[in-house]
Amino acid sequence: MRDRTADTQRDTAKVPDREENMNQFDWDHSFLCDFDLKKGFSQKAETTKRYLSQMKDMYYDTEAAGKILEQEDPLIYEFYELGCPERAGDLAFGTTILYPGKVGGEYYMTKGHFHTQLETAEVYYTLSGQGYMVMENPEGDTVEMPLAPNQAVYVPRRYAHRTVNTGNEPLVVFFTFAADAGHDYGTIETKGYHKMVVEKDGKPVIVPNPKW
Amino acid sequence: MRDRTADTQRDTAKVPDREENMNQFDWDHSFLCDFDLKKGFSQKAETTKRYLSQMKDMYYDTEAAGKILEQEDPLIYEFYELGCPERAGDLAFGTTILYPGKVGGEYYMTKGHFHTQLETAEVYYTLSGQGYMVMENPEGDTVEMPLAPNQAVYVPRRYAHRTVNTGNEPLVVFFTFAADAGHDYGTIETKGYHKMVVEKDGKPVIVPNPKW
Repeated sequence: MRDRTADTQRDTAKVPDREENMNQFDWDHSFLCDFDLKKGFSQKAETTKRYLSQMKDMYYDTEAAGKILEQEDPLIYEFYELGCPERAGDLAFGTTILYPGKVGGEYYMTKGHFHTQLETAEVYYTLSGQGYMVMENPEGDTVEMPLAPNQAVYVPRRYAHRTVNTGNEPLVVFFTFAADAGHDYGTIETKGYHKMVVEKDGKPVIVPNPKW
Repeated sequence: MRDRTADTQRDTAKVPDREENMNQFDWDHSFLCDFDLKKGFSQKAETTKRYLSQMKDMYYDTEAAGKILEQEDPLIYEFYELGCPERAGDLAFGTTILYPGKVGGEYYMTKGHFHTQLETAEVYYTLSGQGYMVMENPEGDTVEMPLAPNQAVYVPRRYAHRTVNTGNEPLVVFFTFAADAGHDYGTIETKGYHKMVVEKDGKPVIVPNPKW
């Protein structure tokens, strides 16, 4: 029998060493990770960042993406991975911070993915911002759910999912999924999703992706 | 191929019929459920409630519990179940609202449980309030983690877990776990946890449970 009360109190009092301890969590024991309830950021962990250059071909208007990249390489989104081992029974969790902006008429979005274990769901809880969860299954059934603070959205088993920011501030979501779900980006990267979220007359509209 | 854009927009505009539609979600398709980011309550779903009479023997001071029950049967906590089917790959999620109060010197707490599938974790994210997550595994290893807004706590595989409210306002947490994890209350109900959280000189302290 082991008593970790003392350890716990030490851990929570300790300021993590940014150089050494970021994202070093022990998933066999309990740990804390802070996420700002509005901005999503953690003092204790480090984000993975996705810049436009890493996903320029995922936007419909590749020419517009190219023009932006001649000037700058904007940060599209960042998220926490925390190093969860891909083991059955564990749960990966964290926040995603998706910035506002557009490429051509298309709103900034995450890459999105299927789970490699297709029959695994994911739960998202929106902390701030406005947007959509854009989903589709391998049969091509599509569904989009509006994201807004206070709203949790269930991404059912079998559905690829991508978040899109249609607002003027960062879209911040807290997510949890099975650690061994895996990520399959390839299927979606080839042609993109069946649906796109674009600005039309100053408002977001969901339109078919002409590449399909 | 099916396009649910129209359905989605209808769903979000529709005010749910409280009599008929509470907790009726279709886990094969995406759905939204609101949870207030501070208070935890949903307009769309209904809580399950736990009163003192349902857990009076879980507090160490059964005499104090008896005395309270002669006067009233206080609501200790409530939580959302949402009717998630116990299927592999699905995720149950919701909030728990644990009220402030004490039975004898022991702070209000949830029943707590092991998962029947012992090797399954759970993620909690504290929205408001103060308290502890009290955990132990079948070997009797114990660990307590402080709960506070902005903090996510990882309940690792194999650990029974209970939330305790040590503050003066409701403790509100958002949780996610594997839908087929199952709940084993019995093991913990017999003797309780190895550790208790009690008030001493106006402050919460973690002490061994004398029943062990």
